[in-house]
Amino acid sequence: MRIAEFGERALLSRLSRVGYPKSAPLPPGDDAGGVFALGRALLLKTDGFRAAEVRLSGMPEAAIGWRAVTAVASDLLAKLAGPLGFVLAVFLPPEAEVEKALAWTQGAARAARAYGAPLLGGDTNAGEEAVVASGYAVAERPLPRGAREGDHLLLVGDRYGLTGAAIDAHYRGADLSRYPAIRAAGHWPRARLALLGLGPYRRYLSGSADSSDGLALTLWLLAEAGGVGVELFSLPFHPELLAYAREHGLAPESLVLYGGEEYEAVLAVRPEGRPFVAAWLEEHGVPHHWAGRFSGPVGVRFSDLPVARKGYDHFR
Amino acid sequence: MRIAEFGERALLSRLSRVGYPKSAPLPPGDDAGGVFALGRALLLKTDGFRAAEVRLSGMPEAAIGWRAVTAVASDLLAKLAGPLGFVLAVFLPPEAEVEKALAWTQGAARAARAYGAPLLGGDTNAGEEAVVASGYAVAERPLPRGAREGDHLLLVGDRYGLTGAAIDAHYRGADLSRYPAIRAAGHWPRARLALLGLGPYRRYLSGSADSSDGLALTLWLLAEAGGVGVELFSLPFHPELLAYAREHGLAPESLVLYGGEEYEAVLAVRPEGRPFVAAWLEEHGVPHHWAGRFSGPVGVRFSDLPVARKGYDHFR
Repeated sequence: MRIAEFGERALLSRLSRVGYPKSAPLPPGDDAGGVFALGRALLLKTDGFRAAEVRLSGMPEAAIGWRAVTAVASDLLAKLAGPLGFVLAVFLPPEAEVEKALAWTQGAARAARAYGAPLLGGDTNAGEEAVVASGYAVAERPLPRGAREGDHLLLVGDRYGLTGAAIDAHYRGADLSRYPAIRAAGHWPRARLALLGLGPYRRYLSGSADSSDGLALTLWLLAEAGGVGVELFSLPFHPELLAYAREHGLAPESLVLYGGEEYEAVLAVRPEGRPFVAAWLEEHGVPHHWAGRFSGPVGVRFSDLPVARKGYDHFR
Repeated sequence: MRIAEFGERALLSRLSRVGYPKSAPLPPGDDAGGVFALGRALLLKTDGFRAAEVRLSGMPEAAIGWRAVTAVASDLLAKLAGPLGFVLAVFLPPEAEVEKALAWTQGAARAARAYGAPLLGGDTNAGEEAVVASGYAVAERPLPRGAREGDHLLLVGDRYGLTGAAIDAHYRGADLSRYPAIRAAGHWPRARLALLGLGPYRRYLSGSADSSDGLALTLWLLAEAGGVGVELFSLPFHPELLAYAREHGLAPESLVLYGGEEYEAVLAVRPEGRPFVAAWLEEHGVPHHWAGRFSGPVGVRFSDLPVARKGYDHFR
């Protein structure tokens, strides 16, 4: 069967099991893979894309490398693993300027630094413009995808839907000069290094996932991994998201649920741990939103309306 | 300036310094990058290529993934670092068959196992056929590129020039049925896991490099890193290499020096350590060749003839 018909997620799910060790600190298909070594969980993650797929109008070239490292860092941080380093493989046509390769790499190095780790070199190849970042990280006990009945649903961060809005603006040619947060989220998406501060509260956390596939699909993945449903009570709306949606006649909840690529993290928190987790986040000024509860049969419901299990597919 | 004019090695050398930490266990531009953590050197390496660049006639699809992991493992093993795990990012067009993605991944998983580590997942993207493997590894004290005056030159392995011969056979359409070792080295190149056995002799080793860029360039890189010359006394010739070269009127020393892609390892050994290193290699049946000495001004000489500083460039 062709990949386009099979679907990217089915393919990834099938490939993720090939050779994956039974005794790994995270199950196959989780946000990152890893092994236990030197008394810790050491995680490894790779993520790539063609430049044409992510380039928005007005985006500097350095943002290509920045985004690749950010995508990897986001997966590692969502597992509460502290990044140790990153590498960047680039594909560029022979006629490309050296400056482009340099800009991508500098963007990757800046992102790595923003996540507390160095860039550790890379690889260059002739080919259509693409990058693949990889990174490794260390955790005491990484947080898998999952959730338990009764858990509270915590959305860390305040950029839900903003990158989706930036992508929407790119395709409709909309001006973003009055939307600096949307523009920033589109060009320089950020993973949340602050997630590592939740390490001491690990015993109150049942599971987590990075939100890069879009909030809706992320919730589905947590629900399926935990064998439990998600009851959404409310969604977080950034003021710029509301203004942008109003200007262009869009439903803001669609952008928040299906926009994707914002690299925030979604957590399932034991009810008895919520006060401690909330206190830490508030004390450290980390934006967040308590959005609902894990309960009932597998699925995602928002005010009793089902939320579609859909996300981006590279092959469609 | 365009990458094609600038050259891949100049580009890699420039990019390798971007953001690279001063206190790393290996210098920028070495076979792998890394950090000190948990009391050890933890190395990270990435390597990729377009499938069209490595596909030889008759090569099974699984060999694509195998080779990507082998290329990474070879760099890590040459540093005397024990692989912990690998990941594989694949680019395939949407109309590609699912079986191809599966074959690449299975080949990668088999290679990972051959180097004592698991495959830990990966990533899929739409695009022209390409793979990027990444891997991490642990070492007490990784072996950098380099050499010292008076060191003996040790070529570990016996496959020098065999992959080069397989590539030559592909382009001239030569039949390899009488050359099983050349065929195997072309389709299923192997890194030397046995290198890890040299760990206890680390104090006798000044430096090392993986030979994937071709023996000539590898010797140049060791010489330049050490600020010392290479005096080659002899080269190792596999019997199939000699027969193949004779059949096709080729100079076997050219294949050995410039063939490349055989993923063996070249070491600089202190003279007082040679008996111990030799005894270990012989005791464990690891093929090897003492090929010369590090001495004099930077450069590579074979019977007083200079050896060209050339290797493969993806962009030319």
